[in-house]
Amino acid sequence: MSVFPNVEKIKFEGKKLNSDLAFNYYNPNEKIAGKTMEDHLRFSVAYWHTFTYDGSDPFGTGTMLRPWDKYHGMDLAKARVEAAFEFFEKLGNPYFCFHDRDVAPEGSTLRETNKNLDVIISMFKDYMKTSNVKLLWNTANMFTNPRFVHGAASTSNADVYAYAAAQVKKGLETAVELGAENYVFWGGREGYESLLNTDLKLEQDNLARFFHMAVDYAKEIGFTGQFLIEPKPKEPTTHQYDFDAATTIAFLKTYGLDPYFKLNLEANHATLAGHTFEHEIRVARTNGFLGSLDANQGNLLLGWDTDEFPTNLYATTLTMYEVLKNGGLGSGGLNFDAKTRRTSFDTDDLFYSHIAGMDAYAIGLKVANRLIEDKVFENIIDERYSSFKTGIGKDIVEGRANFKTLEDYIIDKEDITNKSGRIEKIKHTINRYILMES
Amino acid sequence: MSVFPNVEKIKFEGKKLNSDLAFNYYNPNEKIAGKTMEDHLRFSVAYWHTFTYDGSDPFGTGTMLRPWDKYHGMDLAKARVEAAFEFFEKLGNPYFCFHDRDVAPEGSTLRETNKNLDVIISMFKDYMKTSNVKLLWNTANMFTNPRFVHGAASTSNADVYAYAAAQVKKGLETAVELGAENYVFWGGREGYESLLNTDLKLEQDNLARFFHMAVDYAKEIGFTGQFLIEPKPKEPTTHQYDFDAATTIAFLKTYGLDPYFKLNLEANHATLAGHTFEHEIRVARTNGFLGSLDANQGNLLLGWDTDEFPTNLYATTLTMYEVLKNGGLGSGGLNFDAKTRRTSFDTDDLFYSHIAGMDAYAIGLKVANRLIEDKVFENIIDERYSSFKTGIGKDIVEGRANFKTLEDYIIDKEDITNKSGRIEKIKHTINRYILMES
Amino acid sequence: MSVFPNVEKIKFEGKKLNSDLAFNYYNPNEKIAGKTMEDHLRFSVAYWHTFTYDGSDPFGTGTMLRPWDKYHGMDLAKARVEAAFEFFEKLGNPYFCFHDRDVAPEGSTLRETNKNLDVIISMFKDYMKTSNVKLLWNTANMFTNPRFVHGAASTSNADVYAYAAAQVKKGLETAVELGAENYVFWGGREGYESLLNTDLKLEQDNLARFFHMAVDYAKEIGFTGQFLIEPKPKEPTTHQYDFDAATTIAFLKTYGLDPYFKLNLEANHATLAGHTFEHEIRVARTNGFLGSLDANQGNLLLGWDTDEFPTNLYATTLTMYEVLKNGGLGSGGLNFDAKTRRTSFDTDDLFYSHIAGMDAYAIGLKVANRLIEDKVFENIIDERYSSFKTGIGKDIVEGRANFKTLEDYIIDKEDITNKSGRIEKIKHTINRYILMES
Amino acid sequence: MSVFPNVEKIKFEGKKLNSDLAFNYYNPNEKIAGKTMEDHLRFSVAYWHTFTYDGSDPFGTGTMLRPWDKYHGMDLAKARVEAAFEFFEKLGNPYFCFHDRDVAPEGSTLRETNKNLDVIISMFKDYMKTSNVKLLWNTANMFTNPRFVHGAASTSNADVYAYAAAQVKKGLETAVELGAENYVFWGGREGYESLLNTDLKLEQDNLARFFHMAVDYAKEIGFTGQFLIEPKPKEPTTHQYDFDAATTIAFLKTYGLDPYFKLNLEANHATLAGHTFEHEIRVARTNGFLGSLDANQGNLLLGWDTDEFPTNLYATTLTMYEVLKNGGLGSGGLNFDAKTRRTSFDTDDLFYSHIAGMDAYAIGLKVANRLIEDKVFENIIDERYSSFKTGIGKDIVEGRANFKTLEDYIIDKEDITNKSGRIEKIKHTINRYILMES
Repeated sequence: MSVFPNVEKIKFEGKKLNSDLAFNYYNPNEKIAGKTMEDHLRFSVAYWHTFTYDGSDPFGTGTMLRPWDKYHGMDLAKARVEAAFEFFEKLGNPYFCFHDRDVAPEGSTLRETNKNLDVIISMFKDYMKTSNVKLLWNTANMFTNPRFVHGAASTSNADVYAYAAAQVKKGLETAVELGAENYVFWGGREGYESLLNTDLKLEQDNLARFFHMAVDYAKEIGFTGQFLIEPKPKEPTTHQYDFDAATTIAFLKTYGLDPYFKLNLEANHATLAGHTFEHEIRVARTNGFLGSLDANQGNLLLGWDTDEFPTNLYATTLTMYEVLKNGGLGSGGLNFDAKTRRTSFDTDDLFYSHIAGMDAYAIGLKVANRLIEDKVFENIIDERYSSFKTGIGKDIVEGRANFKTLEDYIIDKEDITNKSGRIEKIKHTINRYILMES
Repeated sequence: MSVFPNVEKIKFEGKKLNSDLAFNYYNPNEKIAGKTMEDHLRFSVAYWHTFTYDGSDPFGTGTMLRPWDKYHGMDLAKARVEAAFEFFEKLGNPYFCFHDRDVAPEGSTLRETNKNLDVIISMFKDYMKTSNVKLLWNTANMFTNPRFVHGAASTSNADVYAYAAAQVKKGLETAVELGAENYVFWGGREGYESLLNTDLKLEQDNLARFFHMAVDYAKEIGFTGQFLIEPKPKEPTTHQYDFDAATTIAFLKTYGLDPYFKLNLEANHATLAGHTFEHEIRVARTNGFLGSLDANQGNLLLGWDTDEFPTNLYATTLTMYEVLKNGGLGSGGLNFDAKTRRTSFDTDDLFYSHIAGMDAYAIGLKVANRLIEDKVFENIIDERYSSFKTGIGKDIVEGRANFKTLEDYIIDKEDITNKSGRIEKIKHTINRYILMES
Repeated sequence: MSVFPNVEKIKFEGKKLNSDLAFNYYNPNEKIAGKTMEDHLRFSVAYWHTFTYDGSDPFGTGTMLRPWDKYHGMDLAKARVEAAFEFFEKLGNPYFCFHDRDVAPEGSTLRETNKNLDVIISMFKDYMKTSNVKLLWNTANMFTNPRFVHGAASTSNADVYAYAAAQVKKGLETAVELGAENYVFWGGREGYESLLNTDLKLEQDNLARFFHMAVDYAKEIGFTGQFLIEPKPKEPTTHQYDFDAATTIAFLKTYGLDPYFKLNLEANHATLAGHTFEHEIRVARTNGFLGSLDANQGNLLLGWDTDEFPTNLYATTLTMYEVLKNGGLGSGGLNFDAKTRRTSFDTDDLFYSHIAGMDAYAIGLKVANRLIEDKVFENIIDERYSSFKTGIGKDIVEGRANFKTLEDYIIDKEDITNKSGRIEKIKHTINRYILMES
Repeated sequence: MSVFPNVEKIKFEGKKLNSDLAFNYYNPNEKIAGKTMEDHLRFSVAYWHTFTYDGSDPFGTGTMLRPWDKYHGMDLAKARVEAAFEFFEKLGNPYFCFHDRDVAPEGSTLRETNKNLDVIISMFKDYMKTSNVKLLWNTANMFTNPRFVHGAASTSNADVYAYAAAQVKKGLETAVELGAENYVFWGGREGYESLLNTDLKLEQDNLARFFHMAVDYAKEIGFTGQFLIEPKPKEPTTHQYDFDAATTIAFLKTYGLDPYFKLNLEANHATLAGHTFEHEIRVARTNGFLGSLDANQGNLLLGWDTDEFPTNLYATTLTMYEVLKNGGLGSGGLNFDAKTRRTSFDTDDLFYSHIAGMDAYAIGLKVANRLIEDKVFENIIDERYSSFKTGIGKDIVEGRANFKTLEDYIIDKEDITNKSGRIEKIKHTINRYILMES
């Protein structure tokens, strides 16, 4: 029985002003630079925002009444699975993602909780046999339950640490069971409320030990997916250890974890940390840590994580530019870690929102691809840094210069000429490329 | 003799990817909703950013060497006038704006300073006879000179107050002389460094007295242009009195100045105050205070005024939507209070930047106009607030309801049904309209 | 039966480093400038944070298990009343505050909800007879229930408007019943999620109509307490109509509501709006709108409302300075709109936190009073603005100057001398006064 | 001839409310925990803010007229040296710091510039023989001159890179000549205006090459001081490569530079990056990168670097706590990278400001020391993390646990008990310790 009876399979209808429940720009089978749009974008639906979020916020209770909300406990969990696969079927996303606690309720011990989880994992497995949807990644929710009040792998309480370890152990087993392409850690409580009562060194040492145990256990059970860490600077804690891409890279290198981990970057987390999304992606890309993306957007006038569906074409264009320059996302994808606004509480809004995001990324892909085909940025960079291709610049880049040779070269030179950076012209060019893409 | 010898008159060439020094979207004579683009947009060039800014910032000296920089003192001032009118001629902007101190250097007394100013005003007047360029507004710079260290009309020093008064007196005379359509106050130092040494009440009382004197003197000399106040929350001071539109309206009403003043709103000032530009415009518009606009944009990840050229099509679309709904800007205009980046130091960048801004606003105008023609927002609003058109809602709006009648109506009602706000779908629609406009 | 069996009545023990559950600085009966500390500070406990907050945040469920949590529905509501009055008795606060929905659960209609409320109001009344605790203010919670998803008095749905009206009607009746000294409006949902679907003018007109109805009904039933509006810039909505003190004053004046309303200012709301708390208080005070204070503090590195207990002595000193200069708070008070951190989940933390806040404000009061006795700021102001007491400055202040007389005075003057603002020395002086107060 | 004729040597006068030009808390020879205050605090005066800053800001020219401003060129440079050493003598600071361009003007080639510099370095050397003041660190200003518009060691122009290299070469020679205890890099232009025209990878590779050359050259000429990098997130550039401590550590490790560099952390840079100062210090300390501190403070309601003198006792206490726990700052110190406000333009304000900062840090030192003596934080930490000292916790910390042993331990456990974090009580305790210290 359908829970989305009003919605047919979403189809590509081409550029239109007023089409409802259709794609205008996302055409899964369209070829761009040798791959289909679907393969470039690797869209994933986030189970939590789509099937469990009820519209509550810090000042209000849920506004979203879903067809499956008539059920409770394990029945609710099962109803959500059915709804999810109907949704995936109609939307056409190739991937989904979930936290363990999104999909099944907790029992009174971890053993009972795991039993509940097993039932749902088994349902997933069955559905996935006949569906085209695969698991981009799964993760463990180690932030909602009050036991994690002081952190999970960075807790001040050894019992909690043990609990978290056992929970991730199960998560890795789940990943193997369902063929997840990645396993994600987002440390929602891995940080501090206040430095005044925090042993930062011990907490970070313990966190590193935890990640090493995960790596060891993955090896043991044959999990070959990619480990990913998702940086976020703050919220819910005052300060989170995985503040941003650079901080996480510092941590991974300090503890010898860099061979095993890449980053799952989120747009809204980037801006909360004071960066653009493209900055975070560039940092990860140039350091070899680009893993996967949480495709959403924030409101830069607000200081909290709004997880809006991504509709800003400048952001989708620059994101897809980085992705194309990276040769794609590998085992990663574009996961819509995005929720409809509390005020967009209709079930149909779930479709409208995903369509808005998918079309926005499809446009971004097309614009970025054309920018690359025309070598727009490549030509700018080539010309701007041309002085490093010959003479003293080449010596510098190739390691033949030192302070003395450089001093000799420059000490009597009177004039140094720089070139304009031409930012305004470049921004105008991007506008023209976006408008061309319609 | 030309100072921009490489640049021909900028022409409209239509949609192209790689045209240089041409408009792709701004076509001055194109008719939109019964008026030409030129009349809708009323573009103005800011004298200070374009002819006096040298590229310095708090950590570095000027990067921009202009053709007129070989001159000094009054010769420099005169050379700038010539450059300005050549620039206006080539760009085709119908308006310009200036501060008194942008155009002529100070002497050792105000009398000498005024003499310098008179020479340049006279040149302006001559040039304006044969040019199509008019003066959108002029203003007094009462923030650069160290005498204004503690404020101008809100200073702690009566001599400074007198100086500021005499300076604005001259400014109003200049406005009459050049036929300025508005006179602007931006209170760069009208605020405080610290509340700890500030008599906020006295300072605001004095500020209000100052504005009343300006109104009186304008009447006396027959200045009939519009008075405008430009809100900004902070920078250079820690806290400025004209924080935002609402704060300025509160001030004007408190001191009985509301009949005489409207607002000159700036995009970057809006975001520094925690608002979108469209919010500030809406607040001014619904309260009858929309006067003129400073068209630029800020970087929301930075906490200071960057005064970038406006290229964001979302912002230009929503701005022009508000302007069209206001029936235009009256005597106001779109003044590019924007500077090329310190790194965009070529003289040509002045053209590239203005073209980028003008094309972006031309697109915004076209998209906004089409949104209005299709009643996109109007239909959303009509349907969303329809409950206020009949029954109890109509009673409320028409003043026939009170707490008792409303209680009677609702006290036993079990269900209240709200409608989804559909924000994601609306944002998707805006993307479609922008892409249609190419 | 006691729910706080470990805690005795909190006593003043004087300055100590390690006392537990005692005041070191707050001595209710100590006389300062002719009034007792208790009368100066008028402390109030917030019912919601203290007796209903469970420690949940956007990423986690409740951590706080209270003795009364074994009850449900009306039994829970009653148990909370008992706990509250025991708490008040032990803490010694003279006031408390509540929202209607903090104290009693909702029924299926407003009539049923009101019945629930009546039971608790009646209990309050009984307890208040034998207790020294009075009601500083009550208010209506018009933000938690999903019906308020689009606002209450600024909703897009007339039924919701009617519901809100009926709810405030009951609130005013409650205020009369319990002798509340004020009635507060905090418009948690009175704002917008997005301007794109908002009729800002209609919403604000309706909001004003609502306030007028409240004024009318108060008159009708003889409520003589003070109406207060509590500004907040954002959260939960993207943008709230009562952004800050100035915005609220603009609104009140625009709609002729200024004779009936004052402001309830909150420290954390001030900083979210980009102001210091003392700025907001000063603006309200100099405009005659200072009503009451929500005494908490925020974390300026976080972009959301943390509602921390106030412990910053700089802030408490400057707040009490403004309060003393205002001649006290009138019918207002210092309400601890503050919650213990999610990580401070013990019931004892409720006492520790209030003690921390009360001692911090007691110190602030003593430091501020001594600053005033020594005329520290008064002398600074007198000397700094002395030029407005004679000559041209006096002419300005007394309205005898105009642009021409001021020009005559200044036009040939060569030198203007300003005085240093001495901020660093002043801040050092404040440190010395704080350290003296121990 | 004295340039500060009104000021005598600043003396310690003990706790007083109204002393002028004296220390109330900083007593250089007072012993705290086995060392003198002077040795703990290692105060340094910043040459640039104290002897070259003129009070200009982005909207105004200089307000500060100094006795030495009657000179020009090299005469001005020499007059400043004399003023500086008189200032140091009167203030009693044991250290100073400078950029190369603070102390001598540039010539038309680097060779000429170096000659100018040599004259002043020689004067410094002479003065230092008879003074007690030593050089904490020197650095190269590679941000003010327009040649650095696109960066210095991360420039897009090889000539500029060579120039920067030669400049730092001279800087290292200067460091040797004057016995500097450290050499600092602050990368004011090492970042980007926009990613759109930036080859981030090449720029960072070149930056790393530059640091390696510096290390090599230091070795060659026998400079044995500590290399320091000073993180700052942005301003003047949109995004700086040394964003914060963690980012800089990631960079150092990526390029094998970690053995040679420590960090020079600044309070205002910390808050611009979204961190507390104590966070940055803790991160550096626990990773072994704590080098030196720039002691100032920012205004968290403003988004730019205000470089205020540090007067906040909470910040000075927590900073000194970290310093004491680190066993001191080694070759580092507390450099007042702070400027008097533009409105505090008197020469006396230079003394008032330094006194305010030095007293604030003296109090911080005393409070922090007492907190440590009483083991306030140590006891909190010991108790809070006690579960890691025995049983399963000890197994975790000592590397004997893995996911399977941890699962075995926890899988059937029903209850996990956490302890309150007690933040409010801790903050109250800090207030009590501060007030005790007077």
